[in-house]
Amino acid sequence: MEHSMVNSRDRDLLARANKVVPSGVWGHMATRAIGPGYPQFFSKSDGCRVWDVDGKEYIDFMCAWGPNILGYKRPEVDAAALAEIAKGDINNGPTEVMVELAELFVDTLDYADWALFQKNGTDATTTCVTVARANTGKRKILVARGSYHGAVPWCSPSVVGVTSEDRAHLILFEYNDIQSLDEAVAAAGHDLAGIVLTAFRHDLNRDQEMPEPAFLKHARAICDKTGAALILDDVRAGFRLDVRGSWAMHGIKPDLGAYSKAIANGWPLAAVAGSRRMLEGASKIFTTGSFWYGSAAMAASIKTINILKNTDALPHMQAMGVRLREGLASIAQRHGFVLHQTGPAQMPIMRFENDKELQIANAFCAAALRHGLYLHPKHNMFLSAAHQPADIDRALEGADAAMKDVVSAGFKSM
Amino acid sequence: MEHSMVNSRDRDLLARANKVVPSGVWGHMATRAIGPGYPQFFSKSDGCRVWDVDGKEYIDFMCAWGPNILGYKRPEVDAAALAEIAKGDINNGPTEVMVELAELFVDTLDYADWALFQKNGTDATTTCVTVARANTGKRKILVARGSYHGAVPWCSPSVVGVTSEDRAHLILFEYNDIQSLDEAVAAAGHDLAGIVLTAFRHDLNRDQEMPEPAFLKHARAICDKTGAALILDDVRAGFRLDVRGSWAMHGIKPDLGAYSKAIANGWPLAAVAGSRRMLEGASKIFTTGSFWYGSAAMAASIKTINILKNTDALPHMQAMGVRLREGLASIAQRHGFVLHQTGPAQMPIMRFENDKELQIANAFCAAALRHGLYLHPKHNMFLSAAHQPADIDRALEGADAAMKDVVSAGFKSM
Repeated sequence: MEHSMVNSRDRDLLARANKVVPSGVWGHMATRAIGPGYPQFFSKSDGCRVWDVDGKEYIDFMCAWGPNILGYKRPEVDAAALAEIAKGDINNGPTEVMVELAELFVDTLDYADWALFQKNGTDATTTCVTVARANTGKRKILVARGSYHGAVPWCSPSVVGVTSEDRAHLILFEYNDIQSLDEAVAAAGHDLAGIVLTAFRHDLNRDQEMPEPAFLKHARAICDKTGAALILDDVRAGFRLDVRGSWAMHGIKPDLGAYSKAIANGWPLAAVAGSRRMLEGASKIFTTGSFWYGSAAMAASIKTINILKNTDALPHMQAMGVRLREGLASIAQRHGFVLHQTGPAQMPIMRFENDKELQIANAFCAAALRHGLYLHPKHNMFLSAAHQPADIDRALEGADAAMKDVVSAGFKSM
Repeated sequence: MEHSMVNSRDRDLLARANKVVPSGVWGHMATRAIGPGYPQFFSKSDGCRVWDVDGKEYIDFMCAWGPNILGYKRPEVDAAALAEIAKGDINNGPTEVMVELAELFVDTLDYADWALFQKNGTDATTTCVTVARANTGKRKILVARGSYHGAVPWCSPSVVGVTSEDRAHLILFEYNDIQSLDEAVAAAGHDLAGIVLTAFRHDLNRDQEMPEPAFLKHARAICDKTGAALILDDVRAGFRLDVRGSWAMHGIKPDLGAYSKAIANGWPLAAVAGSRRMLEGASKIFTTGSFWYGSAAMAASIKTINILKNTDALPHMQAMGVRLREGLASIAQRHGFVLHQTGPAQMPIMRFENDKELQIANAFCAAALRHGLYLHPKHNMFLSAAHQPADIDRALEGADAAMKDVVSAGFKSM
């Protein structure tokens, strides 16, 4: 069947969108930035599956770019949120749910003495920076080159519409590079407010790296010595690696942590958590939003976190990631490709060797779409607790068929 | 009954919150910043009524600080949102609902050729500034002294944790003051990117002012001449005065508009709308958020806007505001006070004459709470379409009783 026939509803919607929305679709979900063949519009989702507007079903490995951690439409989570909506949400102030969620954050994260709630990951990273400055009375913020911390002028990957002053107090360093970090600290002089680090290195289109224990320890020591804030940007990875926080496994406690995406299984929520050391700064700043006290998403978060704590969701998710990774490695090898799969198995990235222009990755992902898999050629992907062995095995059959298509089209590892 | 008995659940929750949340409650909903006697925590809401956690019912005139425009728990709005949640929300991209909502914005607002959607009012104002800079290649943003445009470093009413560079390209002027605006324009020189104005002057603790037609025309002419963006911050007033945009009644079209609060009757959503003139800048910038394509809030917004367009909700809301205003004026007069009630009747502010320290206002609002009214002593309030004549009349009975209490306590107009 012609692609233009198959995707006719998607094309029609995009044509309509192009008339009333800048670029048709903005931001990270614009498929023109992913690769060829991606449907832009979706009609529904359930468990580990998504359906595009033309009715095609996919086993999904993007999880809405992270928010889906327990499975789309997880009934217990949605029921908790809907119960709040039935009471009327939002009100003139918080409900009891806010207190319960803050208590749950403090009980769950290994470094947190307090928490507050917002709507966007960028809200959380911006507030962390503001708290760090308020707490220290200093200005310089150290960020790793290439790390994504949000999409407002101080941190956006784009500089269009951004002024140089928006980033006047940022100093860059290389993730996992102690010498580079030391140079940035030296450049900050007596004006160091904080060091921001993602949970691990999950930058676009490069192999992922776990943080080196020595590097994290060094960053911690710098902050202990100077009073600066060690800020964990856990927006993307938070609660997917470890409910205690993504550095608990490394034995390093940040001073501040930023959360969003998976914390309420798709309901819109973000959070900042912090240690007692940062409480004064956090108490002095002014941060707010019209919907930040909405209880529905908070109730969804309580249920989500409790399921993650009290079930085998995380080890299961990791096991499914390993099953996918091993299967893909074997399929790639059989077809003559070397696949680099890096990072935590539940947040995998796959990169083909000798594929700098992403021609193989794009061809493979486009073929995978036709065979019912939604993958990403250059961004880390996400597993959920809803992925079952049969789903992974079905996905691997699709991946095998897609790899055959790639070989048939003449692609080969160089 | 002792106040400490009446509000025991509220006090207990606040004590718990103080242990795990900076300042217990952050932002604009922290009642310690409003006045004495306010309950902090709510348990439910319905129509034009809210209930605190100790079970006390209030006729509400804050409407969750704006989001409630059709009545808490408006069934048609919630049903539209829940239908999206039943399909699975959020997905890997937008649904058809996004296109429909953008089309509705363009059809409804008198200046809009495009729209995009976000979560916070601050997202929208920040994006407007970024688009203005991207479109003009210039940097200076003119803002009225005392106007609220959000709570991030470039615009927060607090400077704690903010650096001077965050505001390096802001220039202040006085709302409705042509000479002051001209001076700011002169100060911007050839670097003028945009002028930001709230729909009307609705600053904290001062009489509200509608924009002077000559002032708006002057601002429009400056932007026409220089190519700068005239930015309408309609976050607080949007869709409450006029569905066509809050300056349609003045015949002035902005280039960009920021929306949030009431656009989805309490479901979390924000929007930027703009004219074709700003489309290039809007297409070039990068702005995104994890939940910005969530369809539930967008479906709620479609239903909300259509109800506002196709029913008498707005004139009704205004009529209820007039009924409240006239009743309060008469009650105040009867008890020997002069009450200044300014701004649109559906977004009233009330200030007592000779009450600079707000002693009368605070005493009156605290008494009103006891008599079942939720008012605000220094911020504009909000009416909703759910307020009926009987609710206003009941509220006026409570206001009369509250005024009697104020007189009994020895307060009088000086």
